[in-house]
Amino acid sequence: MSTGAPLDGLTVLEVSSFVAAPLGGLTLAQLGADVIRIDPVGGGADLGRWPLAPSGTSLYWTGLNKGKRSVTLNFRDAEGRRLLGELLAASGPGGGIVLTNAAREWLGHGELARVRPDVIHLQIQGHRDGRTAVDYTVNAEIGFPLVTGPEGLEGPVNHVLPAWDVACGLYAAVGLLAAERRRQRTGAGSAITLALADVALAVAGHLGFLAEAQVTGTDRPRIGNHLYGGLARDFRTAGGERVMVVALTRRHFGDLAAATGLAGTFAELERLLGADFGQDGDRYRHREVIAALLEPWFAGRTVAEVERDLASTSVLWSRYRRFTDLALAGNPLLGEITQPGVGPLLAPGSPLVMDGTTGPRPAPPLGADTAAVLTGLLGLPAAEIRALAERGIIGGS
Amino acid sequence: MSTGAPLDGLTVLEVSSFVAAPLGGLTLAQLGADVIRIDPVGGGADLGRWPLAPSGTSLYWTGLNKGKRSVTLNFRDAEGRRLLGELLAASGPGGGIVLTNAAREWLGHGELARVRPDVIHLQIQGHRDGRTAVDYTVNAEIGFPLVTGPEGLEGPVNHVLPAWDVACGLYAAVGLLAAERRRQRTGAGSAITLALADVALAVAGHLGFLAEAQVTGTDRPRIGNHLYGGLARDFRTAGGERVMVVALTRRHFGDLAAATGLAGTFAELERLLGADFGQDGDRYRHREVIAALLEPWFAGRTVAEVERDLASTSVLWSRYRRFTDLALAGNPLLGEITQPGVGPLLAPGSPLVMDGTTGPRPAPPLGADTAAVLTGLLGLPAAEIRALAERGIIGGS
Repeated sequence: MSTGAPLDGLTVLEVSSFVAAPLGGLTLAQLGADVIRIDPVGGGADLGRWPLAPSGTSLYWTGLNKGKRSVTLNFRDAEGRRLLGELLAASGPGGGIVLTNAAREWLGHGELARVRPDVIHLQIQGHRDGRTAVDYTVNAEIGFPLVTGPEGLEGPVNHVLPAWDVACGLYAAVGLLAAERRRQRTGAGSAITLALADVALAVAGHLGFLAEAQVTGTDRPRIGNHLYGGLARDFRTAGGERVMVVALTRRHFGDLAAATGLAGTFAELERLLGADFGQDGDRYRHREVIAALLEPWFAGRTVAEVERDLASTSVLWSRYRRFTDLALAGNPLLGEITQPGVGPLLAPGSPLVMDGTTGPRPAPPLGADTAAVLTGLLGLPAAEIRALAERGIIGGS
Repeated sequence: MSTGAPLDGLTVLEVSSFVAAPLGGLTLAQLGADVIRIDPVGGGADLGRWPLAPSGTSLYWTGLNKGKRSVTLNFRDAEGRRLLGELLAASGPGGGIVLTNAAREWLGHGELARVRPDVIHLQIQGHRDGRTAVDYTVNAEIGFPLVTGPEGLEGPVNHVLPAWDVACGLYAAVGLLAAERRRQRTGAGSAITLALADVALAVAGHLGFLAEAQVTGTDRPRIGNHLYGGLARDFRTAGGERVMVVALTRRHFGDLAAATGLAGTFAELERLLGADFGQDGDRYRHREVIAALLEPWFAGRTVAEVERDLASTSVLWSRYRRFTDLALAGNPLLGEITQPGVGPLLAPGSPLVMDGTTGPRPAPPLGADTAAVLTGLLGLPAAEIRALAERGIIGGS
């Protein structure tokens, strides 16, 4: 099949910073959209965010802007702001799409709909009422940090993965595609708002946390590395490494019992406790005694021996790895790119494996595509582009 | 505007269980798609997953299947499997879409493309090579649990939020919409695979974790509730409650210094250390001393006093809340539904606020729409439906 990339012909103007909005644009870019990230001249607040390469180039910024084009405009100048509107107007039938987390009136749906009535505009914000928030404050206010971490611990455990930013960025990609589908059918644009706090609350609701609090009126306990409502926990192996082991179903548990030679013990224990470890609830209620009985089996085996003994079973398990332990070479998700400011690097493409998608492409240096985009979309001659740059209305590469 | 829901006319057959695939379908359903979840008669392995309502109804299952239709078929019987293909064939121009995490040959792209050549088929799996995995094992193998949690802690800290499942479900929604966009332009269907392990590795790469490990060869340290590369941490207040405080930019830090009366102290400290706390890196390097200087200010104030003193500043902060502390009433994201098996409940709609979307709808009881869907899509008369139910080929409500 040669049907092109899934999002061929889609053009998105992204005025963004940090994680959520850039990840939304990246997700579309990796499926073939032309995503033009537009920054203020000199870059946004996220340009130098850690981690950094030895050169000082941000590995975070470059990771989130792979395969986009970069334009810099002077947003403090009316002419710079007007250029953004002109780019929007000129971005073609699959364009007219703005993704932003910047709260600026001139960047809002109302203003931009005046230049392009069918604009699809997605505004990411902290709270729905416009109050600011970031992943780390949203996570605090939603409830997860007080139920994460070791049982005896007092105080919150923050996540290291900014999970709400990630979910928000992916929701943004969904919202833009849904709106563009409707625009194709009806011609109508969309004003979409997406609040980070709403993303967190929605996901907590979809997973049953909000219903549980409403129905039971009590809080789920902090249960360390156990899985709520099932049997899963980390175990220490003979070499001191840890493995995560999960038995989600009757079959998983039966296989785990058989592989560890504990089938008879568990059967006797079920009889004594009046329990059925084939049931989620009973595996969960008796998790401590089940785990205590399993501990010596794992403690007596290296990871290689665990692997050998569990390999042909349905039991779900994995070693805990560090980022530096990951075997990246040869993984088909990753491709080698030469990232300006960093050098050669294995970087991920889209996890959506489908016809017409390609491997990862490097992030552009800040502003590198300013002239090409102004020429390509607006037809500005080179002399005018030079003049705009000299007057500080646009940045350069 | 009366342009209808964004995904009006889209019909998705979802053969799913647990989190990722059901969340993908839910995301589309909340934007107006007709999502038909098809389960084996009697339900899938996730039907009774905790948390539960007093009636035994799963708050988890109902949370993830809001606003879908539910059909049950006997997958063990060739006639039940054939009915799924017939539903696919009959699902109209916006149909022919299958979302599944079940690995069954008869449910694969190859088989289903025989009934509907333009099928869009998205297969969620553990690893790309087909090995099984779940959120908890993927999280262990990607690296986050060993850098999450208190600094002195030994061993991993699992997340309570299944963040990889959530990201995977949202990527699935993106993939289906991208493929449907291409099908509208070219007529071609898509075979999409999406591995949970690839989602985790891609996100870790997009956020710079993989590049950091490659470029520096060292692992990020475990830094408790501090934010890597910036200044953010929890603080204990006078009432014993905790607040999360974030200073991502020079302005945030300046406002925090001013609000806490520490501007002079920090200026002197910057001079002594040769540092500029307006810079991410310097705020991060000196996070312990900065936080130690801030601690007494928070410890001497109640949350209400912190709120009063930070309200008019740019400082990002939030109380840590428990799920039972969340003020749900009046939140416009939530709507009251009457969930069969549970009762009245405040449940979230889509966080994507856009014209044509509506509030949350309850999840159907298992199999409740079997007859209506078979009649509506296949035109089967009531007598034939009764006969299929009597023969155990389909379930009932």
